[in-house]
Parts: sequence; C-alpha cells; structure tokens
Amino acid sequence: MTAWTLAERASKMNPSVIREILKVTEKPGIISLAGGLPSPHTFPIDAFAQAAAQVLAHEGAAALQYAASEGYAPLRQAVAEFLPWQVDPDQVLITTGSQQGLDLLAKVLIDQGSRVLVETPTYLGALQAFTPMQPRIQAVASDDDGVQVDDLAAQVGSGADKARFLYVLPNFQNPTGRSMTEARRQQLSQAAAELGLPLVEDNPYGDLWFDAPPPLPLTARNPEGCIYLGSFSKVLAPGLRLGYLVAPHAIYPKLLQAKQAADLHTPSFNQRLVAQVLQGGFLQRHVPTIRALYQRQCQAMLTALDEHLKDLGVTWNRPAGGMFLWLRLPAGMDALALLPRAVEHNVAFVPGAAFYAQDGDQRTLRLSFVTASEAQIHEAIAALARAIRASA
Amino acid sequence: MTAWTLAERASKMNPSVIREILKVTEKPGIISLAGGLPSPHTFPIDAFAQAAAQVLAHEGAAALQYAASEGYAPLRQAVAEFLPWQVDPDQVLITTGSQQGLDLLAKVLIDQGSRVLVETPTYLGALQAFTPMQPRIQAVASDDDGVQVDDLAAQVGSGADKARFLYVLPNFQNPTGRSMTEARRQQLSQAAAELGLPLVEDNPYGDLWFDAPPPLPLTARNPEGCIYLGSFSKVLAPGLRLGYLVAPHAIYPKLLQAKQAADLHTPSFNQRLVAQVLQGGFLQRHVPTIRALYQRQCQAMLTALDEHLKDLGVTWNRPAGGMFLWLRLPAGMDALALLPRAVEHNVAFVPGAAFYAQDGDQRTLRLSFVTASEAQIHEAIAALARAIRASA
Repeated sequence: MTAWTLAERASKMNPSVIREILKVTEKPGIISLAGGLPSPHTFPIDAFAQAAAQVLAHEGAAALQYAASEGYAPLRQAVAEFLPWQVDPDQVLITTGSQQGLDLLAKVLIDQGSRVLVETPTYLGALQAFTPMQPRIQAVASDDDGVQVDDLAAQVGSGADKARFLYVLPNFQNPTGRSMTEARRQQLSQAAAELGLPLVEDNPYGDLWFDAPPPLPLTARNPEGCIYLGSFSKVLAPGLRLGYLVAPHAIYPKLLQAKQAADLHTPSFNQRLVAQVLQGGFLQRHVPTIRALYQRQCQAMLTALDEHLKDLGVTWNRPAGGMFLWLRLPAGMDALALLPRAVEHNVAFVPGAAFYAQDGDQRTLRLSFVTASEAQIHEAIAALARAIRASA
Repeated sequence: MTAWTLAERASKMNPSVIREILKVTEKPGIISLAGGLPSPHTFPIDAFAQAAAQVLAHEGAAALQYAASEGYAPLRQAVAEFLPWQVDPDQVLITTGSQQGLDLLAKVLIDQGSRVLVETPTYLGALQAFTPMQPRIQAVASDDDGVQVDDLAAQVGSGADKARFLYVLPNFQNPTGRSMTEARRQQLSQAAAELGLPLVEDNPYGDLWFDAPPPLPLTARNPEGCIYLGSFSKVLAPGLRLGYLVAPHAIYPKLLQAKQAADLHTPSFNQRLVAQVLQGGFLQRHVPTIRALYQRQCQAMLTALDEHLKDLGVTWNRPAGGMFLWLRLPAGMDALALLPRAVEHNVAFVPGAAFYAQDGDQRTLRLSFVTASEAQIHEAIAALARAIRASA
C-alpha cells in the first residue's frame, strides 16, 4: 500500500463554497444570480476570431512557442500605457488570470503564521489563494466606504507579527459591490504609508463604472508601497485567463521567479491574441457597451428589489458599477437556510458568510446582475421575494 | 517607507540558471543547442487556425467564459482514452502546462523539511517547483538505465522523515536523454510498492521515440501509487500551456482545490482548441512527423560528434528519442567555464551542474538536437570542438 502523506497546508484547502453551491443550482429552469460570470453577450467573439487568424497567419510559430515568464513585451507595454499612473513595463508581470497574481504574492509574502489583513467581507478567491501559505488572516472592520482606517491601525501588529500586507478591492468590490470613496482612499493611503504597511490592490471591476469612473487607484498614490492586480476577464473574456500585476522593482524579481516555477509563462497565443485585439483603441469602443448593459441590468435589479422586497425588512446597496449587489435579510433569517427554499422557487444566490475571514454575517447574500437578462432578473427577484416570505 | 517582508521561502527561489544562460546566448549569429524549445516546424499552425475559427464560430461564448477547474470534459475524456492503462476521466486534471502539475503537487505533498527524492541529475523545472515548499531534496544514484533501486531503499527514510515521493522522468529524460529500461521499471515499481513510496512520473517526451516506443509507464503498473504528468507541449505546441495530471481518487480532490486557488482553471479557449485539433486521430498522423524530424537531427548530431569530438576525451550517450543528449567533458574541464568560450565560437549549451539536487557534475553539459537544423547542428558541433580544443 502506497502511503500518501499530505502536506499540512492541504488540510486547510477546501472546495470553494461557491462552486459547491453552484452545483446545487444547476437545476434546469433555475435563474442563477449566484455566479460571477460576465455576460457572454459582452465577449467580442468576432474580434477574437479575426485576431486568432491574424496571429496564426503572421506570427504562428512565435505564438505557439515557449516564451518569456515576464509576458509578451507589447502586452506589458499596453498595460503600462493604459494604467493611470507612471508604470514602467518592466514592472508588469502577465499572469494566468489575476487569481494567479494572488497565488504568486501569497508564495512570496506569506510565511506560516504571518498576519495578513483583509476587508470585511472580502473576495473569496483571495482567501483561497492565501490560505495554503497558512497565514493568520485578520479582518479589518469595513463599512460602505471600504476599510475603516482607525481599525486598520489596531490590526497591523508590530515587529515580527506586523501584517505582511492589507488586501483591498476598492472598486465595485466582490462580493459587496461597494466602492471606496476618494476621502477614504486618501486616508487609507496615508495611514498605510505611515504604518509602513504594504497594500495589495485588486482591481478586476474598475472599468465597469456606470456614471463616473472611480477615484484614482491606491497604487497610483504610492507605487512603491503597493502591488496592483488587473485582469482582462471582465473587459474582454475570462476564458483566456489573462491578468497582470504591477509590482515595485524591489520585489518584482521574486514574483517573477515564483511565476516561472508555477507555469513557466502565461500562454503566448493568448497574450498575442489580446495584444492584437487591443490595437487601435478597441477597449475604448468596447468597454462602454459592457458598462451600458450592466447598468441597465443593475437598474432592472434595483427596480425589482424596490417592487418586491421593500416591505420584507431586507436591505441592499445601490452599486455604482461592477457586477454585484449585496443584500441583508431581516434579523432571524439565515441566507444559507434560505438558499434551498430559493432554489425551489427557481432562483439562486450566494450566501454571504463565505466571504468573511471571521464571523460571517449569516444574514447577507450576494446577487450578480450581469449573467441573467433584465426579464430574468425581474422574474428571479420576484421568486426570491416569494422564497423569503415562505421562510419568514 | 513601506516595509516589504519576504516569506522565508522567497529566499530559496532563484532565477532559472538556464534562463540566465539563454540571455547570455542571445548574441546574433549564435547557434543555440541550449534551449529546450521544440522545433517550430512541428507546430500544426494550419490545424490550429482551422480549430480556432471553428471553436469561435460554434462555441465562442463557452470558449471565452469561466469554466470548471477540473478541465474541459471532452479533453479529459480524450486524455483518459489515449493513455495506455485504465484511466477514469474523473482522475484527469487539466493543468496550465505540466509545470503547473509540479507546482500543485508540491503544494499538496510537501511540508517544510519533507524529504523528496529525485534522480541524478533531474529536471530543473521540478527542482524549481518543489523548492518554494522548502523540502529537503535528496538525489538517488542513477545510471544510464535510470534510478538505482538499491540506493533508493537507502534514501527513503522512515517514520515522519519518510520521503513524500520520488520524482522520475523515465522517458528520454531532461536533461540526459536517457530512458529507463523495462527491467529497471519492474524493479522500481516493485520496490516503490514494497516501500509504500509514492511515485511522481513526468512524461513530456514519451511520444518522441525514434525506432520503438518506450516501455509501459510506471503509473500503469500501480495507478494508486503514482501521480502521472503529461503535456501537449511536445506533440502540439508549448505556447498553449496545456498539460494534465492523473492522480489516484484519494488525493485528486486536494490537487483540484490547489488548482482552483492557483488560477481557477486552465484557459477554456485553449482546451477547446486542442480538443478540436485532436479529433479524427490527428496525433496519430502528426506525431510521426515530429519523430522523424527529431531522429534525423539527433543522428546529425551524433554524426557530427563522432566526426569532431572523438579524439577529445569527451563522452556522450545515444538517445532513443526525446530532445536532448548528454555530454561529459574530459577530466579537468568545467562546462560552465567552457560556455563563454563556446559562445565566442558561436555555439551555446547548458552546463549540466544546474540539473543536480546536490554535488553537480561540473564536466557535464546538455545539448538539444531539436531547435537547430541539421546544417546548423553540424556547424555548432564543429564550433564546440574548436572551443574545447581552445580550452584544453
């Protein structure tokens, strides 16, 4: 008998609660507001088809060959150019989705027992990426404007126990859809600099604003103190797994070495495909169509919520962009217990407790307004109201 | 000032010696026998162009959307079908190159200080993937037939210090080009089963045989005791970063969770592209053309070596497949010291010492016969002979 001995860290790994929930919701006829799947109507399929033909015809051998771990130079250049602060392309590392950026920085920055700070609640995929490196993850109190800076100071620790970084998702956060205000960004940026606390800024949704772009990223205010993560998943397509990180020169080489060991490099074909699609200002034309669609769908959800859930003691926010909206059930109700009842009514969501590093709020839940159509959203919210009434 | 504190494991990460060497050799006019780059003449560019058009036209939305972490079901099915033992598609995990397979199993199987066994010498990328998890890597004595089974027993350890696994690359090994004989496979498989020692079998080159296919994989002999790693990089194209692993049901879920945290999933587009290309027995027609090309180029290198290096006290092997050939310089010579001299003569190789977990043999070097043409190989070997003479 072969004796497989698992690493201690393997016992900390768990299946994604969300993925398990999504399996439950794969019932025919169900309208899922659970997943974080961009609307497939936003995928520029024709542009990719043209780019694929172009790339394979003119640079096929290079696109199919091994390539540099740093990423394809013209793509790194393009990223450096579209970011709203002075970025040296040598600071850009192309990653296999921004999830890989989280994995790499966990490897490079987290020792067993390291203190790592996150928002309350926070992105589940970040918790999953950090957990294998066995940090002590601590939640910083957060409100509608983002992390609360006075609690931050209390959580940072000192000496060997000083937090390795604070992970923040300032724009249209997953799961809450909330955004950090300009005032809060200024406070946080200043406090982090004074505390000598590194920030990891994750920005997959920043381009998906409705009426006005969000304030300047935290990284733009102190590039030497931040690692910035970005993604093409929400503005082009997630199935290509193309993200990037921007890191200070001081730690870039270690992230690059971790990248090399993780998968040698991100697929060269995909990088050249996207570099080709980006030419001629494609995103400037394409992203406004995504914004308009998601704004309409968000508005449809807000209208339906006002119509059906107003009198049920449920509260929710009004996101200014992104993909998600955050609900809180009345006292005494539990979102996880509500879910099977909701599925009976043909609607699915994600219970919010999974998104907390500690002490999940059982009354919260996350709704996505991007995958379902406006008509489906109306139907789903009406069904959700019926499920809530039936459970109350 | 922001205080970036690196994880202890980051201090163990180092830039790939090979990549650093390749930079030195990027001199115009140089013939590189250093890289492990498949010949771009073998890339089926037209097949990919057709498949890309097909996939985007008929399943574009799915190909560009998020997908299951396990991988695309028809591709998992295809892998299970072409492997020469009974494989359940549920045991197949699609990875972002087989390098990622090494990263995932390192996370799941290695604790700090764990004993991990490797061949002498071994694949450098495996050392790089294992090192961040801080094992004690121990080399098992190896000869032309592979690992020596009597030394294996001596290295396994016991109790908490028992080796977590032995990593082996039995077919046309990187770096040596050697293959494990049937007799040695039987001995190793039996010894591992008796010792209860898990095997990690890496097989990127197995299809690249010249006159006869290699013996049955070790995993086929004891599937519950082995993790098997495979790749499309050498039979289709490395730039798509598509590999796979096959794991016993007992540990598959942990590898899957590690995969989810690492990059969510391997690009859906690339998986569907390859699934499309594989249809209709494409590999059965395509791979023989790669074998024939590499066999001719290997023969060209052997002929040139016989012609130019015979009288210089250099020894080398005669690979039966794969991409590499292994040279040993005469006593007193050092391959690392030879390299700059070789570059002056317009030829590059990889010094062999980097491939050893301990006590690298400074006289060894690796030559690739797949990237350069036959004419270039002749010229390069003649140049290598001149460099050796000049250094002697």
